[in-house]
Amino acid sequence: MRLSALALLLALPVLRADEGMWTFDNPPTRKIQAKYGWAPDRAWLNHVRLSAVRFPEGSGSFVSRDGLVLTNHHVGHHWTQSVSDAQHDYVKNGFMAASREQEIRVPGLVLLTLLEMENVTDRIDQAVPPGADEQAAARARSAALETLAKEQSAKTGLDCQPVSLYQGGQVWIYRYKKHTDVRLVMSPEYGVAQFGRDWDNFSWPRQDLDFSLFRVYEDGRPYVPAHHLAWSSRGIHYGDLTFTVGHPGHTSRLETLAQMEARRDVTNPIRVRSLERGRAALHAFAAKGEEQARLVSDQLMGIENSYKEVVGETDGLRDKVAMARVAMLEKELRAQVEVNPGLKTLAGQSWTRIEEALVQQKAIAGEAFLAGSFRGDLLHTALSLHHYAEEMVKPAEQRSQMYQGEQALAVLRGRLMGERPMDAERESVALQSLMASVLQELGADHPITQSLLRGKSPEAATKELLAASRIADPSVRRAMVEGDPRGILESADPALVLARRLSPRLEEVQKRQQALQSVITENLTRIAKARFAVYGTSTYPDATFTLRLSYGSIETYPLSGTLAQPFTTFAGMYDRAAAWGPEAEAGSWELPARWIERRDKLNLFTPYNFISSNDITGGNSGSPVVDKRGELVGLAFDGNIESNAGRFYFDARMNRCIALDARAIVEALDKVYDAKHLVAELTGK
Amino acid sequence: MRLSALALLLALPVLRADEGMWTFDNPPTRKIQAKYGWAPDRAWLNHVRLSAVRFPEGSGSFVSRDGLVLTNHHVGHHWTQSVSDAQHDYVKNGFMAASREQEIRVPGLVLLTLLEMENVTDRIDQAVPPGADEQAAARARSAALETLAKEQSAKTGLDCQPVSLYQGGQVWIYRYKKHTDVRLVMSPEYGVAQFGRDWDNFSWPRQDLDFSLFRVYEDGRPYVPAHHLAWSSRGIHYGDLTFTVGHPGHTSRLETLAQMEARRDVTNPIRVRSLERGRAALHAFAAKGEEQARLVSDQLMGIENSYKEVVGETDGLRDKVAMARVAMLEKELRAQVEVNPGLKTLAGQSWTRIEEALVQQKAIAGEAFLAGSFRGDLLHTALSLHHYAEEMVKPAEQRSQMYQGEQALAVLRGRLMGERPMDAERESVALQSLMASVLQELGADHPITQSLLRGKSPEAATKELLAASRIADPSVRRAMVEGDPRGILESADPALVLARRLSPRLEEVQKRQQALQSVITENLTRIAKARFAVYGTSTYPDATFTLRLSYGSIETYPLSGTLAQPFTTFAGMYDRAAAWGPEAEAGSWELPARWIERRDKLNLFTPYNFISSNDITGGNSGSPVVDKRGELVGLAFDGNIESNAGRFYFDARMNRCIALDARAIVEALDKVYDAKHLVAELTGK
Repeated sequence: MRLSALALLLALPVLRADEGMWTFDNPPTRKIQAKYGWAPDRAWLNHVRLSAVRFPEGSGSFVSRDGLVLTNHHVGHHWTQSVSDAQHDYVKNGFMAASREQEIRVPGLVLLTLLEMENVTDRIDQAVPPGADEQAAARARSAALETLAKEQSAKTGLDCQPVSLYQGGQVWIYRYKKHTDVRLVMSPEYGVAQFGRDWDNFSWPRQDLDFSLFRVYEDGRPYVPAHHLAWSSRGIHYGDLTFTVGHPGHTSRLETLAQMEARRDVTNPIRVRSLERGRAALHAFAAKGEEQARLVSDQLMGIENSYKEVVGETDGLRDKVAMARVAMLEKELRAQVEVNPGLKTLAGQSWTRIEEALVQQKAIAGEAFLAGSFRGDLLHTALSLHHYAEEMVKPAEQRSQMYQGEQALAVLRGRLMGERPMDAERESVALQSLMASVLQELGADHPITQSLLRGKSPEAATKELLAASRIADPSVRRAMVEGDPRGILESADPALVLARRLSPRLEEVQKRQQALQSVITENLTRIAKARFAVYGTSTYPDATFTLRLSYGSIETYPLSGTLAQPFTTFAGMYDRAAAWGPEAEAGSWELPARWIERRDKLNLFTPYNFISSNDITGGNSGSPVVDKRGELVGLAFDGNIESNAGRFYFDARMNRCIALDARAIVEALDKVYDAKHLVAELTGK
Repeated sequence: MRLSALALLLALPVLRADEGMWTFDNPPTRKIQAKYGWAPDRAWLNHVRLSAVRFPEGSGSFVSRDGLVLTNHHVGHHWTQSVSDAQHDYVKNGFMAASREQEIRVPGLVLLTLLEMENVTDRIDQAVPPGADEQAAARARSAALETLAKEQSAKTGLDCQPVSLYQGGQVWIYRYKKHTDVRLVMSPEYGVAQFGRDWDNFSWPRQDLDFSLFRVYEDGRPYVPAHHLAWSSRGIHYGDLTFTVGHPGHTSRLETLAQMEARRDVTNPIRVRSLERGRAALHAFAAKGEEQARLVSDQLMGIENSYKEVVGETDGLRDKVAMARVAMLEKELRAQVEVNPGLKTLAGQSWTRIEEALVQQKAIAGEAFLAGSFRGDLLHTALSLHHYAEEMVKPAEQRSQMYQGEQALAVLRGRLMGERPMDAERESVALQSLMASVLQELGADHPITQSLLRGKSPEAATKELLAASRIADPSVRRAMVEGDPRGILESADPALVLARRLSPRLEEVQKRQQALQSVITENLTRIAKARFAVYGTSTYPDATFTLRLSYGSIETYPLSGTLAQPFTTFAGMYDRAAAWGPEAEAGSWELPARWIERRDKLNLFTPYNFISSNDITGGNSGSPVVDKRGELVGLAFDGNIESNAGRFYFDARMNRCIALDARAIVEALDKVYDAKHLVAELTGK
């Protein structure tokens, strides 16, 4: 039926959403079966689990019997950079080992395979002495778990790690095989792996060849994994069932509605305003000339990306349908807690307690945010010097942890004296922007504002302070740090005078903020426990950077007045490159020379990137996308911008995983990189 | 500077926006010069004006010395259909005249060229007798203008039409040359002209070959226009200055802020809810089976498009930045009116008067909307029969205009008796949806709700009414219409009983609504007059489907977390076709066979569609896009979905004109349609 899809997407409630990051001991087989008429069995699950690997900051999988590992270019980026040098920029220019001898060992890179999982909840519970109070119980549990993990590591030779799921509702030991000899095999040029650069980050349609290949070695020979994913010869199609197997990093889906509303209405808007001010200041600075623009371009890039993220998240928190669902689930849980005496005692008050704490947090939100904003500028330096001096005048044993021991102190002193160049203009931009923030967020009458501005405009106060203070000069700081700390505490330098005045207030705000936060954390844990008591494993735990399974299908969503296309092709990449030309936005859509030369060799209509309804988040980067057969059909590398609130909820209407199609990898290896040996190894042909 | 564009687009105030639909007597040359360092002169303006033509519902231009006219496929659609028959579906399959002999005359199609414009404001003012009151003055003006136009038409042989600009601030006579022998030359297949069908309507990036070619004849020979647009051999590039020359149909940019807010908060949400209910009902109906789905597919399509439009418009009216600008401009005008005694007397109270009328309109908005919703169903038929009978029992001279004269009565009777098939199921869906609307918008206690539902559910009330009423049967209606009208007024048919009960109430609501609307209209005219007195021709008049010039440049906008690409290419079309496959959504992205066969002959990276910051609206479809040289570089065919509030304001950050690139037309004619003769004629080679 024509037009039904958009209507259904927009109008109907989200039934049977493909939601969840499920642990392998508890896959949602009934849900999958009900929706897709098929569900994985134990052998399938073991196969994909044992084929998966964990990178230090992402996911990957074994894709050949000779230990080839597939992950994202952006997961491998750091490691590819680490084996590059001035002559060989493998990130920018790519890398291709023409033979195994050319594969480059990557020092420090360790990959993990999850061999075994053991639920030790009962055993750890038994470690709690009878009659122990809450704190003692927690200590006993923690100690028992640590001991157990160490014992197991020693006994098994595996890397045994404690895992806390459902906010402590379950405790597990996950036993990993460690791979310490990992070598770089292939990495495409940055310009095609991150086509569209940071502009296209989060966007769809997308055209990124975001993969790289490593190989695990053991005893100097390619490692033969017990399991690896076969390369699909069939490909994946619109509507097909898809799974991702990977390591989602962190979610906060159990936050209360009140917490999300506080983010939406108070703390996120403060962050947005701060980013907007920072951006405006940097733009004004950059507009002064080319050199100025160059000086702040990295800062601007960072701000733009943070802005995109926080605005996306806030938009998500404003989505009425999604938030109504959050509210409904909370209401249901509260009703369940209310009728169960034990749970009512445990968590009945927790939502209210959190709300009360939030009321207080909101009242100091501006101040708390600003207290954390004194960073990287003259004032931060002044505050650091002041703290240093305050600690140093105390007897050594009374100093706080950070100031204990000669080694720690040496590092600290080095940082304080550091010869880092302070660019006066850049400094002035940062300081002025901070002062404007203080004025806008706290108002002219606030003590912090008065200390900082003394009734002047941000411009005037900045100018005066920068003109009068000497601590921007590294030699001045060196003399202070090497001299008597009392000199700092009594200095007439206006930046230090200011630090002396601000310091107690800032500390007080931070302490209050932390106290409120601990109330929230405690009550959130209670709610989580209640939730686990009610729903048990019929739901999935928040992400913990441990192995999870998500299911979904190749599925469109409403985008810009139409339906998002489920796939892109290489033709779409060349279309976008031609649309912009190589010069636009500092070459953001410029293709590497090899890709221009080889264009006519490619089958331009090879499926390139696709979207699916799999529920993923940061850490899932590099996750294999597998089909019903357990074969590799794609490589997850991003979520669409509509998923930016995915930390708080999954919205089946709009949230999509973006993946690189396996067919594109083979086509590129074959036609662009002349890597027939890798194609043969991957496809087994 | 990397990343600056998005930041500037989002953060900075809209300075020197490319806004306005300017008349040719008053081009904004200083604004264009200031922003682009170049501005058109009188010769340039005359040339493009005399090359432009007006279609009955759109725009076009002469593009060859032999009278070829270029317009959009969707502007030509109706006329192409009108010369098609069962054997020759030129809309679906396209049409190509291989020679001039094969060009098909299109009966009824009249094109206009604007030869001369005369400002007759003073002359018409003189027609007002001294001391005439407002109404008499208006009558005298209107009569004088009509007489003048007729005189001029007779004298010049041209089609002389009165044009009221700036809400009556200026009155003009526009003198058009009429072209009545217009022949179809070339029209591409629907599947490529409207690639993506209604899904992609308003969306960007876009891939539509939305053009067709006609030829004007005179005395049986191709007409040689005094001016035609030369085909650019250079093409257009990112950042280049662009102009559109065409006939924007209607804008309401002088509505007050209060009016826009009333639309945003009250009337548009009512429309949205109504569309949502209608859609849900149709989907439920369509879900019953294939035949049911087929029955309502056209209605669903209509609803989906209305929904897209009204939601887009409402989103636009919710845009804080854009609405702040509307508010600022209104505040500025009100301040100017306040300090000018004459204007204060004229319009000083008008904003308040409109607000007061809006308060009353908002109170009856639901009822007024529903009163206009009794359409196309059993109840509408009953109401029509009832009105007919009410009028017919009066003496002929007392009947309202519609019921005067035998001819009018015959048409009316025919309509009432009409043999139109009433599908019972479809009827039931419509009626039930109406009853649900009444219940939701007016509440259970409202007299209209009580008359309709009599305490029952919409389902039950619908079922009862349909079961008991006989008027769905054409023979029953025929007997009623041909019999004594008193029979209708006394009929016990429950639909007619209902009509008798509802009719007075509905009439009363409509009368009240009209009375309030006339207060608003009167005060809006006063504001417009004040505005013209203050700003004169330093601004542009609202659109009136007369020839206008807009300027702009090829410019990106923020889209889906990144920057919208300024161009697409044929490769992008094939990419999207491959992404969806020919089956998806009833073939929405299926390409005509010829386009699949000829793919490899095309230069796939020919610029295909582009976006520019030109300010256009409905009626501009088919407008030529010309460059500084006055050469044709493109063909405007749509606005992006962000322009859906363009009726109320122009937002330079987001509103974009979507155009077909002239290079794509030539490439398609040459490589796909083998039309080398047309390529030669267009390019003059």
